[in-house]
Amino acid sequence: MADAIRALAIDAVEQAKSGHPGMPMGMADVATALFTKFLKFDAADPRWPDRDRFVLSAGHGSMLLYALLNLTGHAGMGIEEIRRFRQLHSPAAGHPEFGEHPGIETTTGPLGQGLANAVGMALAERMLAARFGKSLVDHRTWVIAGDGCLQEGISHEAASLAGHLQLDKLTVLYDDNQITIDGDTSLSFTDDTLKRFAAYGWAVRRVDGHDAEAVASALAWATRVNKPVLLACRTIIGFSAPTKAGTAGSHGSPLGAAEAAAAKSAMGWNHPAFEVPEGLRERWEAAGKRGGGTRRAWLKRLAKHPMQAEFERALAGRLPEAWHEPLAALRAKTAADMPKIASRIASQRALEALVPAVPEMVGGSADLTGSNNTNVKGIPAVTAGNFAGRYIHWGVREHGMAAAMNGMALHGGIIPYSGTFLVFADYMRPAIRLAALMRQRVIHVLTHDSIGLGEDGPTHQPVETLAGLRCIPNLAVFRPGDAMETAECWELAVKRADGPSVLALSRQNLTPFRTDSGENRCARGGYVVEEASGERRATLIATGSEVPLALVARAALEADGIPTAVVSLPSWELFAAQDASYREQVLGDALRVGIEAAVGFGWERWLGPEGIFIGMGGFGASAPAEDLFRHFGITADAVVAAVKKRLG
Amino acid sequence: MADAIRALAIDAVEQAKSGHPGMPMGMADVATALFTKFLKFDAADPRWPDRDRFVLSAGHGSMLLYALLNLTGHAGMGIEEIRRFRQLHSPAAGHPEFGEHPGIETTTGPLGQGLANAVGMALAERMLAARFGKSLVDHRTWVIAGDGCLQEGISHEAASLAGHLQLDKLTVLYDDNQITIDGDTSLSFTDDTLKRFAAYGWAVRRVDGHDAEAVASALAWATRVNKPVLLACRTIIGFSAPTKAGTAGSHGSPLGAAEAAAAKSAMGWNHPAFEVPEGLRERWEAAGKRGGGTRRAWLKRLAKHPMQAEFERALAGRLPEAWHEPLAALRAKTAADMPKIASRIASQRALEALVPAVPEMVGGSADLTGSNNTNVKGIPAVTAGNFAGRYIHWGVREHGMAAAMNGMALHGGIIPYSGTFLVFADYMRPAIRLAALMRQRVIHVLTHDSIGLGEDGPTHQPVETLAGLRCIPNLAVFRPGDAMETAECWELAVKRADGPSVLALSRQNLTPFRTDSGENRCARGGYVVEEASGERRATLIATGSEVPLALVARAALEADGIPTAVVSLPSWELFAAQDASYREQVLGDALRVGIEAAVGFGWERWLGPEGIFIGMGGFGASAPAEDLFRHFGITADAVVAAVKKRLG
Repeated sequence: MADAIRALAIDAVEQAKSGHPGMPMGMADVATALFTKFLKFDAADPRWPDRDRFVLSAGHGSMLLYALLNLTGHAGMGIEEIRRFRQLHSPAAGHPEFGEHPGIETTTGPLGQGLANAVGMALAERMLAARFGKSLVDHRTWVIAGDGCLQEGISHEAASLAGHLQLDKLTVLYDDNQITIDGDTSLSFTDDTLKRFAAYGWAVRRVDGHDAEAVASALAWATRVNKPVLLACRTIIGFSAPTKAGTAGSHGSPLGAAEAAAAKSAMGWNHPAFEVPEGLRERWEAAGKRGGGTRRAWLKRLAKHPMQAEFERALAGRLPEAWHEPLAALRAKTAADMPKIASRIASQRALEALVPAVPEMVGGSADLTGSNNTNVKGIPAVTAGNFAGRYIHWGVREHGMAAAMNGMALHGGIIPYSGTFLVFADYMRPAIRLAALMRQRVIHVLTHDSIGLGEDGPTHQPVETLAGLRCIPNLAVFRPGDAMETAECWELAVKRADGPSVLALSRQNLTPFRTDSGENRCARGGYVVEEASGERRATLIATGSEVPLALVARAALEADGIPTAVVSLPSWELFAAQDASYREQVLGDALRVGIEAAVGFGWERWLGPEGIFIGMGGFGASAPAEDLFRHFGITADAVVAAVKKRLG
Repeated sequence: MADAIRALAIDAVEQAKSGHPGMPMGMADVATALFTKFLKFDAADPRWPDRDRFVLSAGHGSMLLYALLNLTGHAGMGIEEIRRFRQLHSPAAGHPEFGEHPGIETTTGPLGQGLANAVGMALAERMLAARFGKSLVDHRTWVIAGDGCLQEGISHEAASLAGHLQLDKLTVLYDDNQITIDGDTSLSFTDDTLKRFAAYGWAVRRVDGHDAEAVASALAWATRVNKPVLLACRTIIGFSAPTKAGTAGSHGSPLGAAEAAAAKSAMGWNHPAFEVPEGLRERWEAAGKRGGGTRRAWLKRLAKHPMQAEFERALAGRLPEAWHEPLAALRAKTAADMPKIASRIASQRALEALVPAVPEMVGGSADLTGSNNTNVKGIPAVTAGNFAGRYIHWGVREHGMAAAMNGMALHGGIIPYSGTFLVFADYMRPAIRLAALMRQRVIHVLTHDSIGLGEDGPTHQPVETLAGLRCIPNLAVFRPGDAMETAECWELAVKRADGPSVLALSRQNLTPFRTDSGENRCARGGYVVEEASGERRATLIATGSEVPLALVARAALEADGIPTAVVSLPSWELFAAQDASYREQVLGDALRVGIEAAVGFGWERWLGPEGIFIGMGGFGASAPAEDLFRHFGITADAVVAAVKKRLG
């Protein structure tokens, strides 16, 4: 049966004239054992919520996954699709892409990400089991990871956390083939990986990855151990290829016609390209139906379960009916009270309204809970012994946090939100990109969003971070300017089911400017906060903490007879999605002045060539916040002076 | 003596009303042992090349470093500077900032970075010792790292590499205080860290960090072991503070007047704030002079050394006199041959000219040597046994690579260049940011720079990556369009002594367009490749692989009677630095069309509100490159059609 995987992998890579045959050939025996005996799934419904999750973290070996989906009889991954491996519009893309086929649990390829996604999935399973009970939620998470995944730093963060939380239904099958692209792993990698994972609190074992019985017995052991398991499968990359097996030559390019033929002959595989003999296909398809009975029994349990509706709602990603009511109440109260608070504090208030009303919201922080204000009173933390909590102490593991959150969102039933400083978005960036690519509802609460954080200095002061996030497709970046806008932006982020959101929040207090609470004005991305008293001579366009500053400048300009409007631009992405006439009406054709305590990169989009930008020209400095705003010339006085100078 | 550190840390944080007293108080005993008995340095010359390097990876504990610099008698870190801790223009910034004081070896604060810098410094030491001999280069690298550093993924990459290369003169002093910001480390962190580092091939030991004799004996042991050493120093955070010691309460905020007074009284410290009694100060200053004799002996050795001039040149970062001659020859040959090659191949040719001529250039790749084309024939790799090589197999460790390269550049005597795919700049981003902040000459060779990489698909196709890099202050991003531009951009990157550079290079072959080789035309960042035949009606502005495409479009437009110019814009940063009249002359006032196989974020700067952008609207897809360019409408035909449509 494993040879069928190898043959398909060889043929598809030859046909595409590109791809990675070595890994599927090396891991075919292990994968066959997993899919025919252990993995709980039913090819008839690849999205069955209680299926085991299988994550191919070593995503370059995508043909392993496509071959398995094909052989086990999944619709939508027929031989025609395999023939079109790596071609436009084929679900069999170069790397597994979430959304291309329902059997693909996550997008992998950037190494280490899948492993961390899997930690999030395994954590989600434990948390949903705690919420809905074992009769609805009781599945395992399996990962295939290679040397590259384990060299990446994210593997440390993810594995350390999985060990800490004792995620005992997680099994990592380590393709221990001793080969990386540059050659033998001994060129760069001499870790004792088993010992390393044991140090994280994992159960570890080594097995011959080509000994089917030994693999099956090790997999059975993995399901019994009450710790996360690392199973190092000693394999030969490109197994069966007569000259390229065991070498980097089989890793990332076609074997070539002669070697491909020789490999098939070594396997005793005498079938035409892309053909799997009927008997073999039947055995594989039977494996694809193994889980059918279990699934049907589960469906019956679900139908009788008192939480059926709630389970289905949460898994479908639909928000509870009255979810926004506490937030609406908070918005009304905010309009009345006009609190002068930091937007990170306003965010905590929004969370106090949201978290009790949206039970699938799960928060956390990378060891900055008190600074990010991400926790909510009465919400317990998740611990190794108790997964009924809804708050996660991620530790100083930003990258692992963001990637595990992707896994939680992909698992379904959870809307994860994080906390760290905005500048550390850089540490999470590869995972944020994947959330955007996969269009997952993952929310990052990123506080201390400018030089306004003060004394911690340039290492902690984002200046290019907003631009660096705004350029990522499908990511919504929100930078609210007062408590009302913060509540509105939270509402938008939670509603945004088809992509990740970032909330950039201030450390420092912000003077409120919004008195109305009916319409969510942030929903259009940008709007006029205060219109000019007469025909506009200037429009001050600002985000976040610079909106109050713009309002002070406006008052001074108006007092000097210069009619000036102030525009708040909390989300560039939403504003860009409005029609041009709305945008033009908001931005106006008077002198445009952009104000943001960040670099101006990208601001030309709103300011045009004649506009003025008042912000940062480079990195920040260490000093009290007020000193820094003065030092870098981001003040109402500077705005007034620039406008007057230009208007003459 | 350690109490003097504690007292200064308490006073400075109280005065600043912000900062981190807990770590300096906890690690004062260990640091005292290190600075008074082991660290090789001379306060009279903090830049002495053969000094030991001391890296405070746990940068929030900056007052530990400032107190040590002050007490050991370093100029420029007097009590006046300490009094102005965290104030504008003080060298005693919130976190240690490279460049603020010569005794600060690197900028730290983003956790884990200092540890990885130190691995690069220790590697640089071994490599320079292999080149110049032990009589000139024979020093150790010491690091203080906290729980946060060790939770970060980068610690895995850096420590795994240090173990692999057996960097035996590297010692990490782990401030094992069992406290992080959120509380006890048990909230999130239960690694057996000693076992983990042993798995990397390190020697490990635990010591009571408040037992001066035990610490001294452990440090002596560390200097004898022939492996990198992790010394876990069990300490009490905020040691001596009566109620806050051992709690997160002493980590990141002032103790408060009462607790500060009580801590001093517990220490038996009866001196006014910021005062150190004369006798104690004398003992500390004696420690600061300990290394004087050793330094003077070294200076004598240097003066007689046959490689003195070369050593001084390399350490000062001056390029060899004739360094550019082989590159000039390559450029002349390129103009004559007009090779149609990928810019990654052109980069390899540039390296073949540069690397032999610039002995301090050290290359490497994160396991993509054959794809990045970063190696040069005849240049051996560095291995654990042999540091005479000049090429590093970094393994799949992009983040560790970039941070270690920062450390190599900071150490001096090495110009490091890396290799990985452009999209994986995301994995390196926190380290790239620090290189930019510290203005270090670090060069990243980032290949496979667009959908032009083809089948590997959207995970591997940068679309927002160029914008994400261009917004980083002080970073130069080069995207050359043919072999000649690649050689020119390499020349600029090597000459750029005051900041990092990125070379974004194509996988696919590029049709050459440059026939001249005298002037380095890329030096101005942008220039007219071909002028219009008559008065310009359109200007096509492109970078990298889209310049040849623009030239094809130009030919078609000219044939249709539309005079069109083509501008190449290989470096936005250099172009932005030209005077406005040059920029206007290059860009012209005809219709501007930007062409880049990436998102348009930031292009408004050059195109203005009326310009047209032809590029990517979102993420890519998996297919052969030509299919993708067609699918996403980035073709000469599309450019021609857009111009004609606009011009009517």
